[in-house]
Amino acid sequence: MTILQEMGKQAKEAAILLATLPTKTKNTVLQKAADALLQQKQTILTENEKDVTAAMAAGIKGAFIDRLTLDEKRLNEMANGLQEVATLVDPVGKLQSINTLENGLIIKQMSVPMGVIGIIFEARPNVTADAFGLCFKAGNAVLLRGGKEAIATNKAIVSVFQNVLAEMDLPKAAVQIVQDTSRESANEMMRLQGYLDVLIPRGGAGLIQTVVQNSTVPVIQTGVGNCHIYVDESADLEKAIPIVMNAKTQRPGVCNACESLLIHESLKDSFLPMIGEALQQKQVEIRGDETVCEKVVGAVKATPQDWETEYADYIISAKVVKNIDEAIAHIRKYSTGHSEAIVTENKENAERFLQQVDAAAVYVNASTRFTDGGQSGLGAEIGISTQKLHARGPMGLKALTTTKYMIYGDGQIRI
Amino acid sequence: MTILQEMGKQAKEAAILLATLPTKTKNTVLQKAADALLQQKQTILTENEKDVTAAMAAGIKGAFIDRLTLDEKRLNEMANGLQEVATLVDPVGKLQSINTLENGLIIKQMSVPMGVIGIIFEARPNVTADAFGLCFKAGNAVLLRGGKEAIATNKAIVSVFQNVLAEMDLPKAAVQIVQDTSRESANEMMRLQGYLDVLIPRGGAGLIQTVVQNSTVPVIQTGVGNCHIYVDESADLEKAIPIVMNAKTQRPGVCNACESLLIHESLKDSFLPMIGEALQQKQVEIRGDETVCEKVVGAVKATPQDWETEYADYIISAKVVKNIDEAIAHIRKYSTGHSEAIVTENKENAERFLQQVDAAAVYVNASTRFTDGGQSGLGAEIGISTQKLHARGPMGLKALTTTKYMIYGDGQIRI
Repeated sequence: MTILQEMGKQAKEAAILLATLPTKTKNTVLQKAADALLQQKQTILTENEKDVTAAMAAGIKGAFIDRLTLDEKRLNEMANGLQEVATLVDPVGKLQSINTLENGLIIKQMSVPMGVIGIIFEARPNVTADAFGLCFKAGNAVLLRGGKEAIATNKAIVSVFQNVLAEMDLPKAAVQIVQDTSRESANEMMRLQGYLDVLIPRGGAGLIQTVVQNSTVPVIQTGVGNCHIYVDESADLEKAIPIVMNAKTQRPGVCNACESLLIHESLKDSFLPMIGEALQQKQVEIRGDETVCEKVVGAVKATPQDWETEYADYIISAKVVKNIDEAIAHIRKYSTGHSEAIVTENKENAERFLQQVDAAAVYVNASTRFTDGGQSGLGAEIGISTQKLHARGPMGLKALTTTKYMIYGDGQIRI
Repeated sequence: MTILQEMGKQAKEAAILLATLPTKTKNTVLQKAADALLQQKQTILTENEKDVTAAMAAGIKGAFIDRLTLDEKRLNEMANGLQEVATLVDPVGKLQSINTLENGLIIKQMSVPMGVIGIIFEARPNVTADAFGLCFKAGNAVLLRGGKEAIATNKAIVSVFQNVLAEMDLPKAAVQIVQDTSRESANEMMRLQGYLDVLIPRGGAGLIQTVVQNSTVPVIQTGVGNCHIYVDESADLEKAIPIVMNAKTQRPGVCNACESLLIHESLKDSFLPMIGEALQQKQVEIRGDETVCEKVVGAVKATPQDWETEYADYIISAKVVKNIDEAIAHIRKYSTGHSEAIVTENKENAERFLQQVDAAAVYVNASTRFTDGGQSGLGAEIGISTQKLHARGPMGLKALTTTKYMIYGDGQIRI
């Protein structure tokens, strides 16, 4: 048995107990875990410093280092996150349906935990705390495999949680971190069928594709968002401009930010130059088709690759379309199925867009930035599913459960 | 673009229209498809005869030929199946939840079709009709890839359906059969990401494992059932004997049949010899542990492999256990997560078994044979999911849909 199989086995055993843990006990663990994070702040920050120093020594810089670095504020946020999860409704043990057959069999469909959840992520240590909180509240054991650059930090955080579990006489294997951060350990994790019930990759498009290509464990794809806004002929420009500006510039690095703007050709002399100027004032680079380049001074010509790119940056692609059909066809071709929006005052067009665009969230007259568990009232989220199986859109606690038919008989046999 | 990609593209285009097809139109198509199957009976049977002759010439025999062969009765059943699906409630367009945020955004979660469903199956031509009926009613296009031995039959059936679609001015690509039945076409289908939204293998354990190992399209695993019955200390033997006999012998070839019997040691001199005799009278071979071989004349010694085998035949493995803990541990080790049962009059043990056994359907005092869409009141089923993502247990029309958030705004932006 390999180390990972052994960890998987222990997680499976822990999961039996976690599945029937009272809500109150789970909430106490989450509260204590939050307290312990704050109490052991210094240890965690010291370990994090080692990771950051090593990463910088290895020549890593920029946003990567930013995501890797913890400080007091981020630790507080992690602790707050755990406390917030404690306040959410327990998704386990809910009766989903009940059906009494003519022969007297009572069929209950109950919500139950998934069992063991695997998370493969990059070098963001906050994922360690977030994932533990949500998986644990939903009654699951979690096996974490984070990026090698964050290993000291992740070990410190997981050790804090495991001590809390041990104090409460609960199995430490409720949360485990894979210590081997080689590529082989990630590959092995993707093939831990029989131990993992689901695998959720959290990170960039490259990581997600690798997991989708190689995993034999069922995967939930999350987070890649090449999100479009289509500004229709009848759009109210008083709505269109703030929506596009908000979706592109409020936080360009996130998956629900707008990456591509489609504009009805009737707006090429009115809205197009206005939005072009507004975006450029916010330092957004515009990569446009011919008409866009003609009407917006400073726009550069888009290459075919631009239409499929999630920039996650101050860049937007822009294209003039003949009508809503062309807009929908373009979106169907390039969408990653995350969030798509139309700005229109035409109800029929709104309805067509809602029906025909194939994405987790489709908006009429609103910013794509609302696709988020917190914003949409779901509470904390483990990610935003861009696939159609199991969960679609922001995934909260319920997405970390499955169902089980419990059938009560009195000797019934099939005739 | 390969042939399969071209088929996938056409299926995607068809799916746009199918997604908003009125229920009435869908039901008319299903009715007409049923009628057309009967009207063109002779053509289909002639094509089927070619398949059967070729298979027999290739040395294939037994149950395989039986599954491949169509006759009037089976064609009637296929037609009836389509008619039955027409009577089921349309799962598309149901409002799953609605939420109005403080900022006025209205978030509706709607049920929508999956889009394009791929089915890889073996040489059972009835799957062609069943899969079309269910996928179509749920608003999906379906791409079928059946076994090479049934290709002439499958082409004939699909052609009947496509003619009905064309007559109704609907896209023929709502149902397509892959004509290339080489292993390569199956492999390519498993990698048709971007065209297929889900892939459902229907067939034996080997086929299912191949698809799970190789598919990059999300897969729903179905149908492998190493189902146990545990007869507890307090079992009412008047219930236990009929339940075991029914679960093992009513139809041994199906996935919800019992494959393994666990018996509390207190019953080794009462129930064990009784059930042993009853099973042997029905020609069931018993492969037992030491105690079973001692108490049941004619039982043969089980090998370690027996505990993990789905016989789908008149064979059962049997083991005496010390207590319910040993029974649950054994089932957790060998279960395929399909259907598991306890026979007991002890409510506490029943509850423990229900909670701790990890399977799609867990029974108290009833035969495992009830895990079936028809039996459990779900209507026709596309398969029985043994995984935890998306659908668990019998999968009816709802399992062939996903959800979409449709969000209605009036200019809202994120603050």
